[in-house]
Amino acid sequence: MSSGTRGYHHGDLRRALLAAAVEAIGEAGPGALSLRDLARRAGVSHAAPAHHFGDKAGLLTAVAAQGFDLLADALRAADGGLLEVGVAYVGFAVEHRAHFEVMFRSDLLRADDPELLAAQERSGAALHASVAGLPADRPTASDPQGDALAAWSIVHGFATLWLAGALPAEVGDDPRAAARAVIHRLFPRN
Amino acid sequence: MSSGTRGYHHGDLRRALLAAAVEAIGEAGPGALSLRDLARRAGVSHAAPAHHFGDKAGLLTAVAAQGFDLLADALRAADGGLLEVGVAYVGFAVEHRAHFEVMFRSDLLRADDPELLAAQERSGAALHASVAGLPADRPTASDPQGDALAAWSIVHGFATLWLAGALPAEVGDDPRAAARAVIHRLFPRN
Repeated sequence: MSSGTRGYHHGDLRRALLAAAVEAIGEAGPGALSLRDLARRAGVSHAAPAHHFGDKAGLLTAVAAQGFDLLADALRAADGGLLEVGVAYVGFAVEHRAHFEVMFRSDLLRADDPELLAAQERSGAALHASVAGLPADRPTASDPQGDALAAWSIVHGFATLWLAGALPAEVGDDPRAAARAVIHRLFPRN
Repeated sequence: MSSGTRGYHHGDLRRALLAAAVEAIGEAGPGALSLRDLARRAGVSHAAPAHHFGDKAGLLTAVAAQGFDLLADALRAADGGLLEVGVAYVGFAVEHRAHFEVMFRSDLLRADDPELLAAQERSGAALHASVAGLPADRPTASDPQGDALAAWSIVHGFATLWLAGALPAEVGDDPRAAARAVIHRLFPRN
């Protein structure tokens, strides 16, 4: 019934390796990660990570693809239009810090990986769908791409500054509430 | 007349080491930097970087402080209110990519360094001054801190996504022009 190292089913081992990679990235960032350390951490043979991911870029690309899929799920689950979708983006970044850190490190990823491209497409589509739900009589309605770019910029910037610990104490300790106020400035009617 | 390694004046050697550090960070990121490599790169004794910066965190903190000083200069030089100050923020990030990468890596910096704190204060003050120049009858005039946070978020996010190569081709190849359109959505009257 079982296959692969230590009785893992094939898909389970891949998932376990990804989870171990995310844990390691959360502790020391993506730079320090090695396939050898990952095998030790997951308690599997040295060959297992290379078998599943090829090399470090392949592993980080798989982490990023999983991150964009989780982000797409979070954005789709957000109810209440662009404001709540933006809040969900920030919530995702805070809760999945290791994924978020890898997802935008194009220097470490295989940009043409089909799984990564599909996951990026899914999360982009969720953002664009929320822009399409904005009032049709807003001043910028003729340029939904511009609205989407502005929305992405403001939530990505807020999330990045929050994670960096760069924001002043007055911003408070609830990232979703603070993000909601910021996004509301960009789209007062949403 | 001269002092320090290879005839550098004291301040010149510090500046030369910082410039070499910025160059090295631009090539391989802050993680890979070591004081030993920096000495080799600058052609000075192994002891020189430690003498000036103590350790790697001290060196990166000095790079970050220099970055916030350069950012403050760029924001102050921008003429035309918040819109142009925001465009200058993005221009700084694109032109000083290595500094920008280090400035928000609080995990690598000494957050309580007086030189860093003073430089952060200067750049923050330049942003807040531009918000103070927004029309007094704008809907959000009662909360200039909120306006400053929204402005910082949108320019930081745009700059970060631009540098990550994450933006679609339709955004074009002029980061300042694209940033101007994004900021204009947040503050249509500025």
